Amino acid sequence: MKAFLNGKFIEKKEKAIALEDRGFTFGDGLFEVLRTKNSHIFFFEDHLLRMKYSAEFLGIPFPYSFDYIKEMALELISLNKVNDGELYIELTRGTDLNREHRYPSEDMQPTFFMLAFPLRQIDPENWKHGATVFPYPDLRHRLCEHKTINLLPNVLAKNFAYAHGGYEALMYREDHMGKYVTEGGSSNYFIVKNGRVITPEIDNILPGITRAKVIKILKSHGIEVIERRVYLEEFLNADEVFLVSTVSKVMPVRKIADREFTAPGEITMTAMKLYGRLMEEEKGRH
Amino acid sequence: MKAFLNGKFIEKKEKAIALEDRGFTFGDGLFEVLRTKNSHIFFFEDHLLRMKYSAEFLGIPFPYSFDYIKEMALELISLNKVNDGELYIELTRGTDLNREHRYPSEDMQPTFFMLAFPLRQIDPENWKHGATVFPYPDLRHRLCEHKTINLLPNVLAKNFAYAHGGYEALMYREDHMGKYVTEGGSSNYFIVKNGRVITPEIDNILPGITRAKVIKILKSHGIEVIERRVYLEEFLNADEVFLVSTVSKVMPVRKIADREFTAPGEITMTAMKLYGRLMEEEKGRH
Repeated sequence: MKAFLNGKFIEKKEKAIALEDRGFTFGDGLFEVLRTKNSHIFFFEDHLLRMKYSAEFLGIPFPYSFDYIKEMALELISLNKVNDGELYIELTRGTDLNREHRYPSEDMQPTFFMLAFPLRQIDPENWKHGATVFPYPDLRHRLCEHKTINLLPNVLAKNFAYAHGGYEALMYREDHMGKYVTEGGSSNYFIVKNGRVITPEIDNILPGITRAKVIKILKSHGIEVIERRVYLEEFLNADEVFLVSTVSKVMPVRKIADREFTAPGEITMTAMKLYGRLMEEEKGRH
Repeated sequence: MKAFLNGKFIEKKEKAIALEDRGFTFGDGLFEVLRTKNSHIFFFEDHLLRMKYSAEFLGIPFPYSFDYIKEMALELISLNKVNDGELYIELTRGTDLNREHRYPSEDMQPTFFMLAFPLRQIDPENWKHGATVFPYPDLRHRLCEHKTINLLPNVLAKNFAYAHGGYEALMYREDHMGKYVTEGGSSNYFIVKNGRVITPEIDNILPGITRAKVIKILKSHGIEVIERRVYLEEFLNADEVFLVSTVSKVMPVRKIADREFTAPGEITMTAMKLYGRLMEEEKGRH
């Protein structure tokens, strides 16, 4: 398996990063995960725009044009003979031979790499009959609107869910009203109540690409979608719950710990169908 | 300059880390910074115990005995001909060729490396007449009692302070009473008010090694030290302010943005003297 690193194709396993890459010593970097199918990369521009916006926020130079990145990504997908796959992109501030927190003053060469590999195996039962998720405290920082590699709290949350036989964590923070849901370790959540769809607003959570697409297609379909703070209690009393992400697409939730739901519910099925159609359309357009 | 990596000495600049080291993709790791003087490493066991405790918390295997680490660290210091120096140690969960958040199930080889380099240059005026620090929101996660490499919020905070001509950030969170100080980007803070010393309690802040030493020596000297939530307002109205860290030792604060203090104040000078003496004693004992 090959990887793309700073303009070159290398062996994926190769030791190619310096000890003092700031991605490795400070978590000073960003990433994206994209879905690929043969020579199509889904929602490429949406993902790259998000990364570029966050790179500007962090003052990390964005090293390549989107066209060049796409060309190299497609070559990597082809080199690795990936059909149904994932494209992983990471950008860090680069190697700093003088470990200090502050941004280095001289012009630094950022580290940019891509991996292309077959889609991870997910039990199809999760889509057919719904996934099980487990509540876990959201221990993350206040930079969650950027897709940074500071992922240790997400690792703890997802590991907790897996260890209990679940598919994903349901992270929550607390305010004076109680626990409210933020997102999963790598997904956004939606609930359905009395025919309306409600999803946590972007308030220190990731503005997910799939989340935005799903909101848009549901609205176009005449379904009301409300973005606001949503409490765990409301999740537990919902008619339907589903999660979305690049890899999970739209996935019904059957259980939040012991609480069971109809899965997939009617509106969840609509969202699954519409999102599948959107992907087909997008693929057809390019 | 050499580095120590997983049992071997390599060139510090060498590309020695795989793209999929979890330290590089998830921030799944820990670090320590220690002061060294010739062949003495200050408070070695305190630092290593903290790292080992956090490794256990995160389920990262701790790969070596303290004795072996010390032996290798001293060899590295000698190879790099460092007199007055810093020792940087990092431990990550290791390389995972299957990027998924959950802890890998098979036994993974962690990545352990050390750097030894001359003490960074700090303007001695900071100790003589006090440093300038700038308030900045504490954007960090809820794992701050562990010294993880999820440091992007610290990077932003310290970069803000440097960009304004300061030495360090003074990070704060908020509760219903207002802004309260947590710590610096890489230091702990103390204030003096009416002869008593007050410092933020360990409540999602790092239990600093220097912090613990300073509390102990001040108490032994008959000075009252209180650990509790301390509000920014109290900092601004303090008689003296100082910060402590492995590299900064005890450093008086002359200015919090525009607010000026006597620096070094009387109790700060006592703390500086006592901490200097403690370092001398510790060095003499080994």
